[in-house]
Amino acid sequence: MNRRYSSKVPTSDRGTLVSAPLPVTFAGGSEGEWRVESIAAVRGEALPDASHLAVVEGPDGIPATAAWVLRGVSSNERYVTRAEREQLVAKQSALGRAEATRAALIPITKSDVWWELSQDERREIFEERSRHIATGLEYLPAVARRLHHGRDLGEPFDFLTWFEYAPEDAAGFEELVGRLRETDEWRYVAREVDIRLAR
Amino acid sequence: MNRRYSSKVPTSDRGTLVSAPLPVTFAGGSEGEWRVESIAAVRGEALPDASHLAVVEGPDGIPATAAWVLRGVSSNERYVTRAEREQLVAKQSALGRAEATRAALIPITKSDVWWELSQDERREIFEERSRHIATGLEYLPAVARRLHHGRDLGEPFDFLTWFEYAPEDAAGFEELVGRLRETDEWRYVAREVDIRLAR
Repeated sequence: MNRRYSSKVPTSDRGTLVSAPLPVTFAGGSEGEWRVESIAAVRGEALPDASHLAVVEGPDGIPATAAWVLRGVSSNERYVTRAEREQLVAKQSALGRAEATRAALIPITKSDVWWELSQDERREIFEERSRHIATGLEYLPAVARRLHHGRDLGEPFDFLTWFEYAPEDAAGFEELVGRLRETDEWRYVAREVDIRLAR
Repeated sequence: MNRRYSSKVPTSDRGTLVSAPLPVTFAGGSEGEWRVESIAAVRGEALPDASHLAVVEGPDGIPATAAWVLRGVSSNERYVTRAEREQLVAKQSALGRAEATRAALIPITKSDVWWELSQDERREIFEERSRHIATGLEYLPAVARRLHHGRDLGEPFDFLTWFEYAPEDAAGFEELVGRLRETDEWRYVAREVDIRLAR
């Protein structure tokens, strides 16, 4: 993992918060450490086919040729409370575990209606009604994750959601994704692509 | 005002929410619609001198030469509740009033400690303790404002805060800024530059 943007702040195996936002580029094409197993349009337009995915942290090393390039930045928490963060940090795994040879990149864009809701309304939908955090906690530490934001960058997707897990935890991951897609929060998803990977 | 990024959504004189994030560039140099009256370092490093400021909405038309260029993007609300938004929208003015011939650009960066706080902790400091919104409401509609985010863009400032007012409301604006700088929230400000403008 390119530690250039995180080298100044210690990171534990638990994925302690790193101060500076981390720009990450996901490039689908003929090169990359991940093999693309499938690309499915869950809602809205799909992405072009690609055999491999390169995941590049920081500004350098982005493949010169790619079928598609998506950019996001890890950022500060938008909804999680202190109590919830403590639960998450106690259970979560960091990216890059040797056994985590399966991954999913799920780019998501939410509707204009979502973005025009006020902070308390979005939080209420996200957790009080949809239990996004509570549900996700059930699948830690098996599923490691990182969220990247793209809306403020003018990207086609608001969020680039990344997950890693061992092959034996794939069924659990499917269950998690299925449950989230049934929530009130997901009624505000305008576009979603589901990319599955292996290495 | 360049409406290119807001033309698809009606905007009222009250500054109704526009859906897409708006990228804005502030370029200090020898050209621009605003004359620079003063540049002061409130905390941390200042910015180089400039006689004029150009404010450019969208990606085109940024001056080729400038002493400094700061970029931000208007984005979704991070702390404001529905009830607070209703109060704000009922009182606030839009940018571009003919009488608003004075302005302030106040770039701000907050500390790593701030960004590592959870959402509920930041909200509690921002409003329950510091009454940022409640205080600001007292100065509407005299002071029009727009907030631009820069941290996720890798910019040197987390926020580019912009204010416009008539000359007779300048004293009120000073009072507002003075009150905010005394709050708990401002203990987390690591760098702040205060640029005053006229047209």
